[in-house]
Amino acid sequence: MYRTHNCGELTIKNKGEKVVLAGWIERIRDLGGIKFIILRDRYGKTQLVVSPNSSAYKVSQELGREWVIQVKGKVLERPNETKTDTPTGEIEIDVEEINVLSKAEIPPFYPGEKVSEDLRLKYRYIDLRNGEMQSNLIIRHKMAQTARNFLNEHGFVEIETPYLTKSTPEGARDFLVPSRLQMGKFYALPQSPQLFKQLLMVSGFDRYYQFARCFRDEDLRADRQPEFTQIDIEMSFMEMEDILCLMENFAREVFKSVGIRLPEKFDRLTYDEAMDKYGSDKPDRRYGMELVDFTEYFKETDFRVIKNVIENGGYVKGFITSIPISRKIASEFEEYVKQLGLGGLLWFKVEDKIVSPTAKFLLKNYEKIVEKFKLKKEQVVLLAAYDDKEVLNGALGSLRLKIGKEYFKELEEGYDALWIFDFPFLEWDDEENRYVARHHPFTMPKNLEQKLDEIKAYAYDMIINGMEVGGGSIRIHDSDIQKKVFEIIGLTEEEANEKFGFFLNALNFGVPPHGGIAFGFDRMVSIAAGVNSIRDVIAFPKTTSGTCQLTGAPSFVEEKQLKELSIEIHKGGIENEEHEG
Amino acid sequence: MYRTHNCGELTIKNKGEKVVLAGWIERIRDLGGIKFIILRDRYGKTQLVVSPNSSAYKVSQELGREWVIQVKGKVLERPNETKTDTPTGEIEIDVEEINVLSKAEIPPFYPGEKVSEDLRLKYRYIDLRNGEMQSNLIIRHKMAQTARNFLNEHGFVEIETPYLTKSTPEGARDFLVPSRLQMGKFYALPQSPQLFKQLLMVSGFDRYYQFARCFRDEDLRADRQPEFTQIDIEMSFMEMEDILCLMENFAREVFKSVGIRLPEKFDRLTYDEAMDKYGSDKPDRRYGMELVDFTEYFKETDFRVIKNVIENGGYVKGFITSIPISRKIASEFEEYVKQLGLGGLLWFKVEDKIVSPTAKFLLKNYEKIVEKFKLKKEQVVLLAAYDDKEVLNGALGSLRLKIGKEYFKELEEGYDALWIFDFPFLEWDDEENRYVARHHPFTMPKNLEQKLDEIKAYAYDMIINGMEVGGGSIRIHDSDIQKKVFEIIGLTEEEANEKFGFFLNALNFGVPPHGGIAFGFDRMVSIAAGVNSIRDVIAFPKTTSGTCQLTGAPSFVEEKQLKELSIEIHKGGIENEEHEG
Repeated sequence: MYRTHNCGELTIKNKGEKVVLAGWIERIRDLGGIKFIILRDRYGKTQLVVSPNSSAYKVSQELGREWVIQVKGKVLERPNETKTDTPTGEIEIDVEEINVLSKAEIPPFYPGEKVSEDLRLKYRYIDLRNGEMQSNLIIRHKMAQTARNFLNEHGFVEIETPYLTKSTPEGARDFLVPSRLQMGKFYALPQSPQLFKQLLMVSGFDRYYQFARCFRDEDLRADRQPEFTQIDIEMSFMEMEDILCLMENFAREVFKSVGIRLPEKFDRLTYDEAMDKYGSDKPDRRYGMELVDFTEYFKETDFRVIKNVIENGGYVKGFITSIPISRKIASEFEEYVKQLGLGGLLWFKVEDKIVSPTAKFLLKNYEKIVEKFKLKKEQVVLLAAYDDKEVLNGALGSLRLKIGKEYFKELEEGYDALWIFDFPFLEWDDEENRYVARHHPFTMPKNLEQKLDEIKAYAYDMIINGMEVGGGSIRIHDSDIQKKVFEIIGLTEEEANEKFGFFLNALNFGVPPHGGIAFGFDRMVSIAAGVNSIRDVIAFPKTTSGTCQLTGAPSFVEEKQLKELSIEIHKGGIENEEHEG
Repeated sequence: MYRTHNCGELTIKNKGEKVVLAGWIERIRDLGGIKFIILRDRYGKTQLVVSPNSSAYKVSQELGREWVIQVKGKVLERPNETKTDTPTGEIEIDVEEINVLSKAEIPPFYPGEKVSEDLRLKYRYIDLRNGEMQSNLIIRHKMAQTARNFLNEHGFVEIETPYLTKSTPEGARDFLVPSRLQMGKFYALPQSPQLFKQLLMVSGFDRYYQFARCFRDEDLRADRQPEFTQIDIEMSFMEMEDILCLMENFAREVFKSVGIRLPEKFDRLTYDEAMDKYGSDKPDRRYGMELVDFTEYFKETDFRVIKNVIENGGYVKGFITSIPISRKIASEFEEYVKQLGLGGLLWFKVEDKIVSPTAKFLLKNYEKIVEKFKLKKEQVVLLAAYDDKEVLNGALGSLRLKIGKEYFKELEEGYDALWIFDFPFLEWDDEENRYVARHHPFTMPKNLEQKLDEIKAYAYDMIINGMEVGGGSIRIHDSDIQKKVFEIIGLTEEEANEKFGFFLNALNFGVPPHGGIAFGFDRMVSIAAGVNSIRDVIAFPKTTSGTCQLTGAPSFVEEKQLKELSIEIHKGGIENEEHEG
């Protein structure tokens, strides 16, 4: 037996007991010949004392940090003045015997040391010894188990769907897997189990879930991973309202299990409301500063820029904040919104009088705003005018968020959770020159008879602290509607059959109304753990170029392996490809 | 709201209630104008009655099997003579309203109908409506949740490891995934998370588990899948004995959750004992018929074949059974063992006297056996002599199993569970012309100083009913031993570093003694569900050629996709490859 106790459980109650512990050496101090060793494992840290007359003293002189040892000894109460209020802080072990289980070279860094992320990832097994990283993964574990328990209790069945499946590129790129037994053919790794989970509803499973790994071969942005984990959920005979209520309870339970209270009731905003008020479909409302339509206050002005916009049917929008504004800061903000498509940015500040570079042109308008919104000293209004409401909302929304993050960090403490719904069904894809499904083409449209850009979807996103943690929809369960939707997004009948024939076919044999949601589990955990990057809640993540620093994947493979797969690297094409791309 | 109740929960207690149900039409009967409809969902079946004066009668005449409908009506008690003892068998619904939610074409087969497996797989969503298939997947779900609960309660942390990882072909072939961002390089899908779980021990997680999908690109045999699910478990500071006890409890709990009692204590056999007694390292002991070494009873014989074998240091082994033997059956058995390498098969049967074609040569020897083993009438002894004990054991073990399956079906009712341990560390690979690790090269050897073919491993397999449901080992936690093992299996230092350098490196930084196990979850569930094929406990399995009949995967992909990956199909090579293979 390697140990009688772990390093986190001995307390004053164990005083006098003979114990055996095992773990890593966190620290060694030598105080006047007596050695104090901190022994560490996942469960905690325990102080060991090796006195010069202990038979273990000789061994103790050879030890180094991160060595793994087993010690036998007696639990003593620490002298009062050296007690701490950590769990094992009242005791120490009087060591009688030390067995070295594994020596350690001096590592490139010690757990928890501030070093580059690349180095941390390369020696992930040292990085993961850091208490914070261990805590992140244990939070992940707890949330996963709570999620499962909730779903189990609510009649959901966990069902595994294939990872080697069919390539149906729609949206992101598929990772492909060459088949050796069927040369020239490929499996694809799933971007999500979407069709399988719908087929499980067609199969009558009624309620399904899965912690599904999903794969997307995208040009990786800062916080994306080529593989990520999704809590994939689907249910039959449920209306949108039922799903939102159940999934809201689900999220509350999952966060509660790691000590986080989400609101008792999640607010709901339509997509249009969210865009109007926050210029974003995943608003972080904690910063306040809702966007306001100020157009009416500028109906009477000769200030050319604004006058033109309003005459063209455009808008003047902005938001009220209280930051220390200056011409310098304002012009930095203006640069920022210009890059997002606006012509410029106006601002005024309430002092004894209104302070603004444009006061001489727009004072009356500004005064009306001050009066109407009962603005007080130090308050600042940032404004812009633009024809296209979407661009205007988007740019102001981004500016709002930027200001929030820079000036109102203190508002980021709490947890705001809400639903966004009534999304547009379609969005225009410039590259493809056609409408594409905004969520995915299996989402139920609200009214297919409307003008294309006015069709809404039975789709919903769960937003926590400005991040989309989950998204879902009611699905199409009628093959005629499904065909119609494929038609609208420009899939010919042939293409639709080629890609989704097996699924379209399934819709002919008795399909329950159904819907579901998928939660981005990595993101959920990162919010709960309070870390900025999902890489800090994934045991072995990849860099933004898709490299595993630890194993070196992806790597070159043996020629024999490629031969067996009958594929070869198209070496000549590499340069050309880059230009074509 | 689509329903107030599901189709499995209404009983006499609900008599008189107005209810709404939804589900699939299992059956429609028309009895003198009254329609009886069986409505089905995952939870059960409920009888609906539509009388000709119901306002729903008109709609009811259009309905067909497998249509999805919603019905509103009142719960009535059935007339006594039509009550059944199914859960809803005392009630029926007097239908007032029917809404068709989804029509169904006539399916290629009805759920549960006996049709070819190919057809079932192609229309899996209909096949899965069959109660038995649903039950299989629900058994799977229950076992998974019980496994998780057990492991959670015992301090294990569920941690996800990457699916896009490094190719380290050792044992089976890797599935490769071309990298687009790093042209010419490949990820590999993991054959198991072996190294990652060991690294998690190096990281100090102490106890880890994962339901891991594993991928092996093998020439598929009857009941193999290219992807399968493994309950992957690893723990630190545990000796083999601790692990066996804990994992035995684990298996007992998991099977208990679906009503199966495994033995209170699993027997343990060494590999050598298992081979000697059953000619197999995964014996199904339920058939009895242990192999017996009869050599001593043939020391005195002039019967040439046996005499030669014994003089060459060989053995005479066999087993006692009680089957109706005849020359015809015996010669069929003889053919069978000849194909497995033996020279022939002897037999005798106890009647009033000993009956055997070889009685005139071996009567005295046979008589000694009858006497020693107190054989009774109708008992039969099958015997063979051979120089090589392994071949002899193997062939007799196979014959034993064949006879068990053919003649002793009734013995297959119970559950036999045991551990096999003390496996040989190495096995000779004729193709590679070198020793390879029998389990894997990270298994701890028992004594590296012995002759290579006498080294044993700290490895153990859990066998249930003759099937290996789990296998594991104590791992090497010392880099010197690990290097030595690589040397023995003929990996040069360079190759070892190329393939496993990151792992060897990790062994330098403080490694706890650790070990673990992996359970073949598909196999476990198939035993519990009492089905012969793991395909019956996998929602969307592949055929033996690796095809998904439902989606058509693997499939040809668009030229554009290959171009982006800079790979091309090596068309010319296809024929040559086949000859080379």
